[in-house]
Amino acid sequence: MQVTAGGVTSPRGFRAAGVYAGIKAAGRGLDVAVVASEAPCTAAAMFTRNLVKAAPVLWSQRLLALGKPVRAVVANSGNANACTGQRGLEDAVHMGEAVAEALGVGADEVLVASTGVIGVPLPMERLTRGIADACQQLSVSPEAGAAAAEAIRTTDTFAKTGAVTVELDGCRVTLGGMAKGSGMIHPNMATMLAFITTDAAISRECLEAALRESVIDSYNQITVDGDTSTNDTVVVLANGLAGNPQICGRGPAYERFKEALHELNVHLAKQIARDGEGATKLLEVSVRGARDTEGARRLARAVVASNLVKAAMFGADANWGRVLAALGNAGVAFQPEHVRIQFVSAAGRVHVMEDGEPLPFDEDVARRVLSEPEILVHVDLGDGAAEARAWGCDLTYEYVRINGEYRS
Amino acid sequence: MQVTAGGVTSPRGFRAAGVYAGIKAAGRGLDVAVVASEAPCTAAAMFTRNLVKAAPVLWSQRLLALGKPVRAVVANSGNANACTGQRGLEDAVHMGEAVAEALGVGADEVLVASTGVIGVPLPMERLTRGIADACQQLSVSPEAGAAAAEAIRTTDTFAKTGAVTVELDGCRVTLGGMAKGSGMIHPNMATMLAFITTDAAISRECLEAALRESVIDSYNQITVDGDTSTNDTVVVLANGLAGNPQICGRGPAYERFKEALHELNVHLAKQIARDGEGATKLLEVSVRGARDTEGARRLARAVVASNLVKAAMFGADANWGRVLAALGNAGVAFQPEHVRIQFVSAAGRVHVMEDGEPLPFDEDVARRVLSEPEILVHVDLGDGAAEARAWGCDLTYEYVRINGEYRS
Repeated sequence: MQVTAGGVTSPRGFRAAGVYAGIKAAGRGLDVAVVASEAPCTAAAMFTRNLVKAAPVLWSQRLLALGKPVRAVVANSGNANACTGQRGLEDAVHMGEAVAEALGVGADEVLVASTGVIGVPLPMERLTRGIADACQQLSVSPEAGAAAAEAIRTTDTFAKTGAVTVELDGCRVTLGGMAKGSGMIHPNMATMLAFITTDAAISRECLEAALRESVIDSYNQITVDGDTSTNDTVVVLANGLAGNPQICGRGPAYERFKEALHELNVHLAKQIARDGEGATKLLEVSVRGARDTEGARRLARAVVASNLVKAAMFGADANWGRVLAALGNAGVAFQPEHVRIQFVSAAGRVHVMEDGEPLPFDEDVARRVLSEPEILVHVDLGDGAAEARAWGCDLTYEYVRINGEYRS
Repeated sequence: MQVTAGGVTSPRGFRAAGVYAGIKAAGRGLDVAVVASEAPCTAAAMFTRNLVKAAPVLWSQRLLALGKPVRAVVANSGNANACTGQRGLEDAVHMGEAVAEALGVGADEVLVASTGVIGVPLPMERLTRGIADACQQLSVSPEAGAAAAEAIRTTDTFAKTGAVTVELDGCRVTLGGMAKGSGMIHPNMATMLAFITTDAAISRECLEAALRESVIDSYNQITVDGDTSTNDTVVVLANGLAGNPQICGRGPAYERFKEALHELNVHLAKQIARDGEGATKLLEVSVRGARDTEGARRLARAVVASNLVKAAMFGADANWGRVLAALGNAGVAFQPEHVRIQFVSAAGRVHVMEDGEPLPFDEDVARRVLSEPEILVHVDLGDGAAEARAWGCDLTYEYVRINGEYRS
């Protein structure tokens, strides 16, 4: 199953737009995105588990709890509408209302997301004007999908998009997506947003289950600096226009849909990890031979989140000791004397630990392997059959510069 | 209760020495420390919770489980004797035997610790010669205590020592200590070692309880990069030579002893935090108004461990959003709308959040406050009466340089 170029307008019946409304400083790119479906959508979403939740998260959660169909999503960058009190909640509602008015749908059919600085009220006049503009420009073109993806960027260095097509019961079903990663603009926090559209016909229960199961092994397995934001949101909208028999229970069609969704989510998640602040390398940690999958996930995350491992990867240092220490700190039982560790990249493979004891290796080869832009840290625990992956990036001077720079 | 200059030789009956045995490269300072008591000691210790434990940790744990008196501790820097298999265990035993032979005590009366590179066997010939030298040079002088503190340093930029004196039931009781922090030498991991000596007479149960209760709010509340090592060890030896009535239960004498021990531990822990790799600032996070103490501890640790907070402190950026997000990520319930956040230093105080909403503040004042070498982040949750503190340091270019530098 191949992820191809494409985005939120790839599935049938989805239009999108990205415009500049003046939320960000001029020259920083588009800042308002709208994605709308010509047919009502089944929706599923997952939100930040941070106890401090931004107004748009609270509002979208409330809408989804109603269980009604969704027609559109509106998102702005440049301002997270977080820590903005009662006014922030009202502004989130007004964002949805502005879309509803322009599209002639209900205000309770529009999900809302924001990303950017926190603690500052939204400039609602400019924003509602921008939303109206965006709604006028909605288009099914790939360019419109790309513009929407541009408009949710903060300090992301590139827009993150992709699409997947699958045959379900003889029907061609498409999924498209866009995401933004942990770029920051002072003085805010890393926010992860992902929006997936699909023309699949699928019940809400199945869509929710597929999203939940996929997020565990995609967005929840990436880490840039271990902090999750007040605004993190993943939304899937399914409008059923592919005409496939509705997926309403587990079975081959569900599994195939879930696989497609997961491929797309992993694709977007890896792009987010690769574009971590200051990152020069994508790190993938693969843990095999674990006793259970949850343990494997935690171990993989612990390695990819370790500052010591991240800094070693920046320095192209085959430092197995830091990998082993991170594993040992994960709070997951395993037998150190069974551990095998390898570093792998396009330039080759370095086998650094076998049965818990270090192996001699050629430092020059190791440096070449670790100087590639994509590094796989392969851990085999030799304890069982479970496995998991996690993604992140190296820790660089640039990360410190971006995040340590005084806000003025 | 004041922590004063002093160290492991400050209490009666403790001798110490630090020598150069050639474990570290020449010019990197002393590398073997021995601390010995003229009378048998009650001992208590806590060890790393990393699943991967170095040989000296495994051996010292085994000795302590026997419950016998302890006469001495031997520690080397430059080599952690970790991931060294069966040979590593034998080498740890031999280190203790070398001390036992020189001092005429039992090999099961000597605790062992190591710190430095991992995965490399100890150079036992040089090390045993160094241990013999150290045992010959043992002295009660302050200089001998200082030499021992020097000898456990790896990349610590200064030796960490201190002493406290208290009156217990009319007797003058002294505690002295030395510690080393999370310095690294390639390719090893951060190791925290602390050795406390005291002439107090105290039962093993009370000594263990006092240490356990103190460690929770001292060493366990510091973080440099969130990783704990294979070798972390805290040992307390009590030889009873102060002549105080033995502390064998809770009561005023126990409480006073525990307070003294805790002051010394916090003093050493803060020195470790201040000397974090590449650190330019000591950060203290104080969480008050929490519902329970464990929650307060976790919240304080979450803030001081956040890369985003640490980088903001490096940049003298009064970024309350990152503090709030770190609190929200700690997995502890609190009410965001009650939160108050202040940044405090010798240069003044900046009140940045009240009742969960940002306050306007003077950016120039904030920058002055945050440019000091010691920063207090003061959080009041307004939810209860529990409180806790945690300590750490800023995240700097130098951290990345030290940890990203290729090992060759």
